[in-house]
Order: sequence, then structure tokens, then C-alpha cells
Amino acid sequence: MSVLRVAVAQVNTLVGDLEGNTELIAAAIDRASSADADVVVLPELAVTGYPVEDLVLKPGFVRASRAAVEKVAAGTGACVAIVGFADGDGDDVWNSLAVCAHGRIAGVYHKRYLPNYDVFDEMRTYRTGDQPHELYEIAGVAVGVSICEDAWIPDGPVTQLARGGARVVININGSPFRVGKDPVREQVLRDRISEGGVPIVYANLVGGQDELVFDGGSMVLDGRGEVIARAPRFVEDFMIVDVSAPPNETIEAYPMVSLTPARPAPRSGLEPRIVDELDPRAELWQALVLGTRDYVHKNGFEDVCLGMSGGIDSSLVAVLAADALGPENVHGVLMPSRFSSDHSVSDAEILCSNLGVEARTVPIEPAHAAFLEMLAPSFADHPADVTEENVQSRIRGVVLMALANKFGWLVLTTGNKSELAVGYSTLYGDTAGAYASIKDVWKTTVYDLCRWRNDLAGREIVPESVLTKTPSAELRPDQRDDQSLPPYDVLDPILIEYVENDRTVGEIIARDIAPPDEVRRVCRLVDIAEYKRRQSPLGARVSAKAFGRDRRVPLTNHFRG
Amino acid sequence: MSVLRVAVAQVNTLVGDLEGNTELIAAAIDRASSADADVVVLPELAVTGYPVEDLVLKPGFVRASRAAVEKVAAGTGACVAIVGFADGDGDDVWNSLAVCAHGRIAGVYHKRYLPNYDVFDEMRTYRTGDQPHELYEIAGVAVGVSICEDAWIPDGPVTQLARGGARVVININGSPFRVGKDPVREQVLRDRISEGGVPIVYANLVGGQDELVFDGGSMVLDGRGEVIARAPRFVEDFMIVDVSAPPNETIEAYPMVSLTPARPAPRSGLEPRIVDELDPRAELWQALVLGTRDYVHKNGFEDVCLGMSGGIDSSLVAVLAADALGPENVHGVLMPSRFSSDHSVSDAEILCSNLGVEARTVPIEPAHAAFLEMLAPSFADHPADVTEENVQSRIRGVVLMALANKFGWLVLTTGNKSELAVGYSTLYGDTAGAYASIKDVWKTTVYDLCRWRNDLAGREIVPESVLTKTPSAELRPDQRDDQSLPPYDVLDPILIEYVENDRTVGEIIARDIAPPDEVRRVCRLVDIAEYKRRQSPLGARVSAKAFGRDRRVPLTNHFRG
Repeated sequence: MSVLRVAVAQVNTLVGDLEGNTELIAAAIDRASSADADVVVLPELAVTGYPVEDLVLKPGFVRASRAAVEKVAAGTGACVAIVGFADGDGDDVWNSLAVCAHGRIAGVYHKRYLPNYDVFDEMRTYRTGDQPHELYEIAGVAVGVSICEDAWIPDGPVTQLARGGARVVININGSPFRVGKDPVREQVLRDRISEGGVPIVYANLVGGQDELVFDGGSMVLDGRGEVIARAPRFVEDFMIVDVSAPPNETIEAYPMVSLTPARPAPRSGLEPRIVDELDPRAELWQALVLGTRDYVHKNGFEDVCLGMSGGIDSSLVAVLAADALGPENVHGVLMPSRFSSDHSVSDAEILCSNLGVEARTVPIEPAHAAFLEMLAPSFADHPADVTEENVQSRIRGVVLMALANKFGWLVLTTGNKSELAVGYSTLYGDTAGAYASIKDVWKTTVYDLCRWRNDLAGREIVPESVLTKTPSAELRPDQRDDQSLPPYDVLDPILIEYVENDRTVGEIIARDIAPPDEVRRVCRLVDIAEYKRRQSPLGARVSAKAFGRDRRVPLTNHFRG
Repeated sequence: MSVLRVAVAQVNTLVGDLEGNTELIAAAIDRASSADADVVVLPELAVTGYPVEDLVLKPGFVRASRAAVEKVAAGTGACVAIVGFADGDGDDVWNSLAVCAHGRIAGVYHKRYLPNYDVFDEMRTYRTGDQPHELYEIAGVAVGVSICEDAWIPDGPVTQLARGGARVVININGSPFRVGKDPVREQVLRDRISEGGVPIVYANLVGGQDELVFDGGSMVLDGRGEVIARAPRFVEDFMIVDVSAPPNETIEAYPMVSLTPARPAPRSGLEPRIVDELDPRAELWQALVLGTRDYVHKNGFEDVCLGMSGGIDSSLVAVLAADALGPENVHGVLMPSRFSSDHSVSDAEILCSNLGVEARTVPIEPAHAAFLEMLAPSFADHPADVTEENVQSRIRGVVLMALANKFGWLVLTTGNKSELAVGYSTLYGDTAGAYASIKDVWKTTVYDLCRWRNDLAGREIVPESVLTKTPSAELRPDQRDDQSLPPYDVLDPILIEYVENDRTVGEIIARDIAPPDEVRRVCRLVDIAEYKRRQSPLGARVSAKAFGRDRRVPLTNHFRG
């Protein structure tokens, strides 16, 4: 057996920041060289950040990507670097990796399987790789290289490489988080190993990028499918692993590029590190925190503000924001109206105090009165309805945006997935903001997360009264959510079937989770709220189907099935 | 020569309205039968509407589509109907057409080339058709069938069908409008005919669907590439054409399904109809009118309101809306502030009067004063800046939305493409609304269109003073657009290069259209306005690259090239 010393640089790249990413990569190469690694592996499209979407349709962007990877390669020595970048030739662009060593690019691999479903649009921007397979001799070991989706295909490139002589296969990834995905990845790698029988080095990206959260969790599995190293998730990491490889075959099926010879003597063994798996709520919490932090910081902001209603949603978002950005960078804004209850104000104040975030109060009565006066001539003969409720919510939106504009903050919105689904929100009111931290979290999960976070803290951060009171928008006297919607423990299962599982109304009725009329009404609410969602801010995708790029339905849509 | 009598039903389908679309199709079949046509051709995905996007990921939707086309087929007789629908088998879905006759589906064709660029995402939802080619004997003529993109491929399906024995090829389309596309389509068809040498029947959809406007313009070209019939654009149409076809080959390369025998005797010739091509401004105008009308009507609304500032953009949108919906359904809202000039108010009033649309005035001073008072404690030590300007714009947004909510109207926004590009707008203020009629029209074109429309009317609809005054947002004393932006005749060419032509900053500087610092500043404005565009309403796409689904760039983006 030969031993390949592999460094996995689980870095947090920045989309479009080719210079900064190149520095990150160069630092990883230096560190790997210092640690006497034979090869250092970076995530998918490390040079450009991931995903770059239509930026790669700019030929100048692709040229810059190629120039950046050439610069990276120029800085390499005997430690081989596997670096993702966008490669181009005329109008053709490939999602690629460069195998860099001895100051040059020794080979380039083009991704062969382009995901074009869910949040992925890679067939839009990239061509399918179709070069003949190649192997790379690193420290005497025949190594195959591949990119992300290539590892998900039965008898696909990873297996072909293993069968064609690779003794280790490296797979670089930009694999976004969703609840429950991590064990699926591990199973996929085990499936490939059961086909090809050689170790796989799985390097994943970490960090938030718009809707996506990349959770890291890079890992190395040996030739029997056992995990021999696993990096932590939701943080940057640098992991060094000695991978035992069987001897190269005498005759490889694929040509091999010789890079570095076998080490003369075995090195002292490294202690393997296998990070424990996360509790599902801890995993979700960390995803939401990382999504919020990276959106704010990567867009050049430090502070956020949010409207604090005293309800559970704004409470949760405030706690997440404090964890993500530090309480000193979070500004809670209480905007009581003539309909706000005393407990709403006091609950919001207690939460801000528990968290150590600013609580600023801006009563909205002056603007509320002014709008009613301005609209009175138009509304003279018309009874009050949801219009007047929306006006209050929009006044709050104006106040939050004014504070954000004046002080250079971002506004976080506080709507959850259940509200977003049925449109229980005011467009340009409570939907106004830059980032929607919990837009992909069902209301029932909002409660779970608050309780879990209180338990973690070992004290009451979210006041018990917030957890137990009846949800209300407080836009008219004695309003309660359940006057408009079924209870959330009935609503959420309907929504999960309709939104995430693509069931029709008829199929959901057949499941008997709610009366037929209720199911019809809820699904219809989902359809007609599409216009609100289309103008709402993005937020972390944490489910298998989030609103946003994950679910692209027409706004003009008469399907009622 | 045999003659095939073809009816082309250029219908305006409704996405998801399978029942309504089925009725439209049945009516077209009846009409074609009455006209003694041999075959009636409907547009792409006529049964479901187009594009249906992720709706086809619902298996229940695909089953409904299949059931609807079976119902259509059951109503057919000797007149063959070519009907687009979504076909499915398990998780596989195809963009398909059914060849229906004698009460049944005689054959199904699956689209082979799936567009996955620009506004198209067909690889996301459909599988690639890979059935063996078939021909259909209709009135004794060997006919080939194909779908949209299949005709755009050199030596692709259309040409293969012709070479394989088809004497006429039918191509059904959902081809969206962009300025200048119509002659391109005709050239593509001529290219196919130069390869295959047989007539092509090109049937296109008409109508607005979210961002897309389908312009119709169905046509028939003979075997020499001459247009022998052309339907009008931007309206529904029913066209009957006698197509002369050379005799069938004795041995076809592809199997032929026999549907109807040759007619015993030739029928009396039909007068061919070739509608004139449109003036480019008339074409653009009609696209914008149809987009606005169909968005409003297909979403169940009749009336719209919009803020009338006395400026050129709101003037143009008011005229478009009046043309689209009738002046009685358009409500102009004047919302003067302490900074509004007298001429703004009078220009807006004159325009409304010229158009015959309601002019309602809601002065915003009460809310303006109220917000300044509410924010005073927070803003005490901070000088006035863009924050206070945004507050005014957002007050107007609240007023318009309140009127729309109360009276069941939609709000039209009035921003043009130049403003949208550089973010010269207030999010939740002037960007608040359901539909952005001119979001894909550059400011310089806004002027052209107003002048053209005045000329068409033979009178001054948009007042000359609106056409000649210096553009201003009037959010502070003596404000002018050119204090923040280059003149529009300098700005627009930079934006076209950056946004539509995917040039880098460096490439635009090299073109010497403006000083380098100006180019850098403008392009940077485009990048940082992405967050505003992401939350702005959709509107008609009329260019080769519109903001929206046509241009998908990351919001978090550090590329400065």
C-alpha cells in the first residue's frame, strides 16, 4: 500500500472575487506544502466562487478565471493543487478543475454531469465535459479527479476512473445544504466505492451565497467505504489525511500524467479526525446563522435591523441575527400601533434585553393617522378591510427602510415559510427587507428552534409567553392568525404536500389530513400569493424545495388541480 | 402536386387552464372542419399553455394534460389536429404534440431540442425526445411534425423529416417576441427549406404570459422558401392555406401512419394572405400593449392605477395602459409633495385629460410630515440624505397600494430599463406594483415611443412640455437626473454593452463611449442595484436580454471586471 497525504481546504470563497479567492487558494497551498501534503484539494469553482450563474456568460469573466488559475498554478511546487475554475474556449465554458504542480497547469478536467434541477442551472451556462479520462501520478499514486455531480452517477466518471486505474479519486464540490442531505452524500460515496473499490476524497465548499448555504462536511472514505476523516460543518476547515492506496495497476486503462514520484519512506501516521454528526436542530440552526452572516458580511454590511412585534417569528430572527452578527450589530425596532397589545411591547423588550440587542421604539400612530386622513376622500363610502391593515404594515416597512438607509444597516424580514406560502403578509410591509432569514422554515419548526435555542442557552432567551401566546398580526382589534388560517399543525402538513412534494389538491384531499374545502382554500392561497413571493427578499434555502430558484411556477397560472 | 389544406389556429392560451384551452382547441378544430381543412395546427403546449415551468413537475398536472389531449382527440374526425401538450411516463415528461384524428391520438411526437438559455429552462423540466421519426399521411400527403427549437437546428429534425420522406413539415411554436426576431425566424425557416426542400407550416402562439409576449406571426413557406401566407402579429388569428406538396416518395425512410387519403379532386384555390411587416416602433408598441393587457386580464383584473409624476415614463405607461385596457380602466394618481413643481401637476393633469383617464390627486404632505416627526428622534444628528427622498417615494407606494387594495386594481410601475439598470429608483416606492410595463425599454426609446404615439394619434397625447423638460425625480429642491447620472444618450449605450452584450468594464472603456471613470461608475451601479431588481415586479421582455429570467446574476457578486 502507498500512502497519499491529502490536504482538504474547506474554504469560504466569495463569488466574483477572483483576486481574494486566489489568495485563499494560495494560502491553502502554502499550508499544505508546509504540512508535507502530496496534494491539496479545493472546492468546486474555488477561483470564481460558486455558483456564478450568468457571470460566466461574460467572455471576459471566463478569461479572468483562466488567468487566475494560471497565477495559482505558477505558485505551486511539488504539492499538487486541485483547483476549481471556469474554463473557456470561444463561446464554450466548462465547470472545470485544474491539476496544478511544479509551477504550471498539468491537466484540466471538465465536469461531465451538469445538474439542471432544483437550484441548479448548469446546463444553461456550461458545456458537458467530454475529454478522454486521464490519471495523475501523485506521490506515485494514480489519482483520478472529478467534480460534484460526477460522483452521483452510478457507473459514472468516478467509477470509470477507479476501474480505469485510479487508486484514489478526488471529487470537488459545491454542494448546498438541505436538512438531511449529509447522510445522503455519504451513502452516494459508499455506492461509488462499492462500484470502484478505491478511496474517495470529497471536498466541499462552506459559506452562504444568496439563497444557498454550503455546509462543508468534507470527508474521506477508504476503499471499503468507511469514513476515515470528516471535517466540521458550517465553518472553514483545513484537514490533512493520510489515504492508503492499493498499488497502481501495471497497465492503466487511461493515460497517466506523471507529477510526483512515490515517497522514498513512509511518513509518521496522522491521527484521523472524524467530527461527530450534528443534531438536526443544531444543523438547521447553524445553516440559518451562516446564511444570515454571510449574506450580510459578503454584501459589505455589519449591522441589521428588524421589526420586533413580540411574536415568535421576529423573536427567532433576532436570536439568529445575534448569533450570526453579534448582539451589538442587531437593532430591534418596536413599532407599536393603536392596535398593539401591552404584552407585545413588553415581550419584545424582554427579548431584546435577554439578547443584549438594542430596542428602539418608533410608534407609528402619526403616519397611521396621516394616511387615513389622506385616503379618507377616496375611501369615504367604503368599509375598512385588509387595506387599512396593510397600510400599518407598510408604514413599518417605511420606518425600517429609513433607519437602514440612514445608518447603513440591512433590514431582516421575519416571515416564515408557512406565511410566505399562503401570503399571510403585506407586500412592501413586513416583506420589505434585504434578507429573509427564516423564509424556508415552517411555522411549526419556528417553535421547535426557539425551544431548542433556549435549552442550549440553559436560560430563557425567547420568553415563555412568546412561545405560548396565540399568534396574531395585531393589525385590527382582537385579530388572531387562526381567524384566517387553519392551526399551524394542520396547515404545515398541507403545505408540505403541496409545495415540497408537488401533490395536487386532489391527492392531498385523498390523504385526509384536513377537510376538502380547507385543503382547496389553502392551496389556492399558495397559488395567489406567488406575486408576493416574487417580490420578497431571498433567504437561506434549508429544505428540499424552498420558495425561490428552487420552485419556479408561473405567476399567471390557472391550474387548480 | 397534391394540395394540403392547412388551418393555423394562432390562439392565446392560458397557462394552467386546461379546460379553457381545450375549449379553444375544440373550437379551432370545428372551424377547420367547417372550412374543409385537412389539418389544423395549434401552438406549442396548447393544452397546458406555455411556458408552464415547474407545474410539469407535478405528476398530477401531466396526467391532467394527457387526459385533456385525449378529450380533444375524441372530438376529432377526418380533419387531423396537431395539438401541443405535456406527455408523461412516470417521472419523465416531454414537451409533446399529439396527432389526433378519427376520435383518437394517432401519434405523439416529443420535442428533441430543448432550449435552456435566455428565458428558457426546458432541460429543467423535460426529457429529450428520442423516438424514431414517423410520418403521417394526411390527405394523401406525407407530413412530418416537429416542435419549435427542432426547426432551429441545422440538419436537425425538420430537415431529417424532409429528407426522410415528408412532403410538408409542420412546426408548432411558443416563440416569444423580442425586437427584431421576426425576420430571424423567417430566415431560419428558409435555411431549413434550403436543406430539406419542402414547405414548412410555422404556427406560433400569441399572448402575454408573465414576462413573455408571444407575437404570433404564424407563416407558411413553400418548398422554395417563399412566404405564401403570414398571419398578423399580437392578435389571435385563424388562417387557412393551401400548401402544394410534391408527390410522396415511393419508399419513405420513416414509417408512415395513414390517416386520411388523397382528396379525389382539387378544391377551389384560396386567396393567400400575407400580412405586411410592422414598423419597428409599432411592433414594440403592440408588444408592450399586449403584455400589459394580458397580465392584467389573465390575472383577473380590469383596472390599473399608476402614479402620475408629470414625467415621461409615467406618461408613456399611462398611454400604453389606456391602449391596453381602455382609458376608463386606468386611474392616474397625482401625489404632489412639498417639492413638486407646478408644471409636474399640470402636465400630469393634461396627459390624463388627453387620454380620458381619471386623474385623482392625493397630496402626500400629511404622511411626509408624520414620518419626519416619527424619525426625528432617531435622525437628530444626521443631515438629510437619500433616506428622506426614499421616504417620499415610499409614501407614494403606500398610497397606490392602498387604492389598489381597496378598489381591486393593479398598480403599474413606471420605471424604464435605464433606471432599473442603475437603480435610479426607490425599492418599495416607485418600484412597488404588480407589473412594470416598460421595464425592458431604454430611456432613449421611451422618448421615441411617445413621439411615435403622438404622431400615430395625429395630436398631442403626451404634452410637448413632457417631451422636452429636463428629467427630475423631484424628491428634493431643484433635483435633476443628470446630477446623478450621465445624459441618457451616453448612459444607454454603456448599459447596452454591459447588460445586453455581456461586455466587461474594460471592454467598454476600450470602446471609448464615455470617460473610463464614468463607465466604471455606471457598471458598478448596475451591479449594486441587483437587490432592487430582484424585488421589482415583472414586465414585458422585449429585448434580447431583459432583466428577469433572462439575466441571472448573483446578488452577492464581487466581480468588478
